[in-house]
Amino acid sequence: MRDDMSLTSTHRAPRIVIVGAGFGGLFAAKAMARLSAEVILIDRHNYHLFQPLLYQVAAAGLAPSDIAWPIRSILRRQRNTSVLLDEVQAVDLAAKQVVLANERIEFDYLILATGAKHSYVGHDDWESTAPGLKTIDDATSIRRRLLLAFEQAEMCADATERERLMRFVIIGGGPTGVELAGTISELAHHTLAADFRRIDPRSAKVILVEAGPRLLPTFHPSISDYAGDVLVRLQVEVRVDCLVTHCDARGVMLGEELLPAATTLWAAGVVASPVGHWLDARTDRIGRVMVRPDLSIENYPDVFVIGDAASIRDSQGAQVPGIAPAAKQQGRYVARVIGSRVNDRATPPPFHYRHAGNWATIGRRSAVIEFPFVRLKGFFAWWIWGIAHIYFLIGLPSPLLVSFRWLWGYVTYSRGARLITGSAHTD
Amino acid sequence: MRDDMSLTSTHRAPRIVIVGAGFGGLFAAKAMARLSAEVILIDRHNYHLFQPLLYQVAAAGLAPSDIAWPIRSILRRQRNTSVLLDEVQAVDLAAKQVVLANERIEFDYLILATGAKHSYVGHDDWESTAPGLKTIDDATSIRRRLLLAFEQAEMCADATERERLMRFVIIGGGPTGVELAGTISELAHHTLAADFRRIDPRSAKVILVEAGPRLLPTFHPSISDYAGDVLVRLQVEVRVDCLVTHCDARGVMLGEELLPAATTLWAAGVVASPVGHWLDARTDRIGRVMVRPDLSIENYPDVFVIGDAASIRDSQGAQVPGIAPAAKQQGRYVARVIGSRVNDRATPPPFHYRHAGNWATIGRRSAVIEFPFVRLKGFFAWWIWGIAHIYFLIGLPSPLLVSFRWLWGYVTYSRGARLITGSAHTD
Repeated sequence: MRDDMSLTSTHRAPRIVIVGAGFGGLFAAKAMARLSAEVILIDRHNYHLFQPLLYQVAAAGLAPSDIAWPIRSILRRQRNTSVLLDEVQAVDLAAKQVVLANERIEFDYLILATGAKHSYVGHDDWESTAPGLKTIDDATSIRRRLLLAFEQAEMCADATERERLMRFVIIGGGPTGVELAGTISELAHHTLAADFRRIDPRSAKVILVEAGPRLLPTFHPSISDYAGDVLVRLQVEVRVDCLVTHCDARGVMLGEELLPAATTLWAAGVVASPVGHWLDARTDRIGRVMVRPDLSIENYPDVFVIGDAASIRDSQGAQVPGIAPAAKQQGRYVARVIGSRVNDRATPPPFHYRHAGNWATIGRRSAVIEFPFVRLKGFFAWWIWGIAHIYFLIGLPSPLLVSFRWLWGYVTYSRGARLITGSAHTD
Repeated sequence: MRDDMSLTSTHRAPRIVIVGAGFGGLFAAKAMARLSAEVILIDRHNYHLFQPLLYQVAAAGLAPSDIAWPIRSILRRQRNTSVLLDEVQAVDLAAKQVVLANERIEFDYLILATGAKHSYVGHDDWESTAPGLKTIDDATSIRRRLLLAFEQAEMCADATERERLMRFVIIGGGPTGVELAGTISELAHHTLAADFRRIDPRSAKVILVEAGPRLLPTFHPSISDYAGDVLVRLQVEVRVDCLVTHCDARGVMLGEELLPAATTLWAAGVVASPVGHWLDARTDRIGRVMVRPDLSIENYPDVFVIGDAASIRDSQGAQVPGIAPAAKQQGRYVARVIGSRVNDRATPPPFHYRHAGNWATIGRRSAVIEFPFVRLKGFFAWWIWGIAHIYFLIGLPSPLLVSFRWLWGYVTYSRGARLITGSAHTD
């Protein structure tokens, strides 16, 4: 082995720069732990976020530190890897450099795993009234809005305004929208039910709005029907075929109808972060970079784009979805490709995506899971969902603590993270 | 009983307004659970904060929601009590009203339990460079500063500037200063030790500055010596008899000497919040209202001031200290006084303070506890401290979860709450 390495190594070890410490970037870094190379992981946050549970932070079920861990501490034993807290400004492909605010970092290989952000489909002015859920700060800001709406309703003498304050509109009927609607309705009907004196939180209205004909459009239609039924049982009002034409502080316009609501949340669409722009590369409709079968970009075989920022089709010709398992698989694949080049081994076959199913929870007793040949739903699926997510957390710190807090919350119906912090008590 | 009550009750139940849901206000409210009265608890936050553990949030050992709980959920079963999230602007003693931003609330009895805030002894401009530790937002902001200092040092090419970034000055050698110094030094020497590649966090310098001749001035001198020894063992530099003459972004001036430091924390003094001003009442040197033996104020027997906002002496003539157990006892006492008036019973004897000792932890293996006739120190005292604090949490939600997280942190030396959140990555 030692001889083999000395044959291929140049004067300095090759440097691999990874931008973004989400699932794609982090698993790429971990997969290169034993590579004789210098790995630099750059992120603008100091933590890796377990995004599938972010809606729980927004709904005050988990604390931010339950689902986010310092990147440094995850990688502390990986001596070939260093972590930089910084924000990438641009990529200089000709010079093979990543441009930061105050320095430039050279690379031999570059992995861009910068993920996606909300897309307001041309209505960026809606963002301030209808925040989306992508970051920890998004989640704590949504938590503050939700809890303050009840507090303000408790103080409010006017019945119409009180009704507006206690109406919550969620735009977008995909997994995030369904999860948010279910958990916010439970917050109102169970967790907060006995907490107020002037208002009855159970009279709050949670409305889930979907532009298409059914919820969970990527799932089988029978699952969509089931999700709708469960949400109605959780007192969520579901509106499909319903296009939002405007959002502002008063509420949401559905065609000509104004739905007065103090709190509106956006779960309707994402767009890839500015990688396409950095690379001046060909992108798809939502800004994802079109990558080659080995996830590198055209003309630059040492530059890779993975995860939500990449657009690629699987062997059946279907688009690889923007979900955590896909990003994780791509991160590991690219690590193999780079490893083969660094060690002068045979190039691996093209990236092959193994779909691990479509997953969504609906409230705290139901979930839907769709595998190619079997569909699960209900309480049993909820347990499978919980176990799979805790299993997925393994390798990251403190899954035990998260599961303990889940169990505690499940038994007591309490939500410990129900704090209104940050900018005073007006938003 | 029923007859007795009907004799004394007027058309409506008497209304008791409590301002502040710290230990004083919360325990006053809880002690009136069975009183035939309307209790209104007003706080500008929606949570009760367990302040003795706040330094752990600042040092990333605990998450905010581990030590703060929604006031509504603590009092949800207490049907005679309602909670208002609002900020008091003034008190109208003549009209017996509390003035909020948008309404006035009448009271028959008023309990002011608004606590204390930092005092910069005439140097309010120091606050932005040397934040104090009183609120959750203070703690998360200090956490951000501490963690960012290491991140910036990792990115910094200049040796002098790196040294400045890795120097942490804590001003004030009382229990808070000692606790902060010990835990920050452990953060650098253990928790972060292996996390960086360019810097060695163990070369960080934590400096504790005290103006007086010894640390922990309210304790016995032998305890002060012991605390100093433990801190030195934890690599803290202790400077007594050392007056801070100026603070700014460069660092701290000690007399004529400039100590360059990027992070300075203030633990040197508090001043009562503006109750004295609201009441136009006689206050002591640090703004606390001079109260009568039953904790009411002069000329207004139905208005009480308790906790850190009140100035009162115990039976030996010593000032009752501004600590949690004192506030708790005063809250319960005032509830008894008001209860006796509402129910037309005999007035209780004047407030008698029972001192439960002086307590402080130094790092994660030592504590000092001083009772009137016995002094404890070391690892044994640390266990007593831990058990007492968990016992103190009983009656509040989830002590189990906190103790579990402590134990986990103790065993693994990890700190789960090590997230840099909030305003970007520059402060």
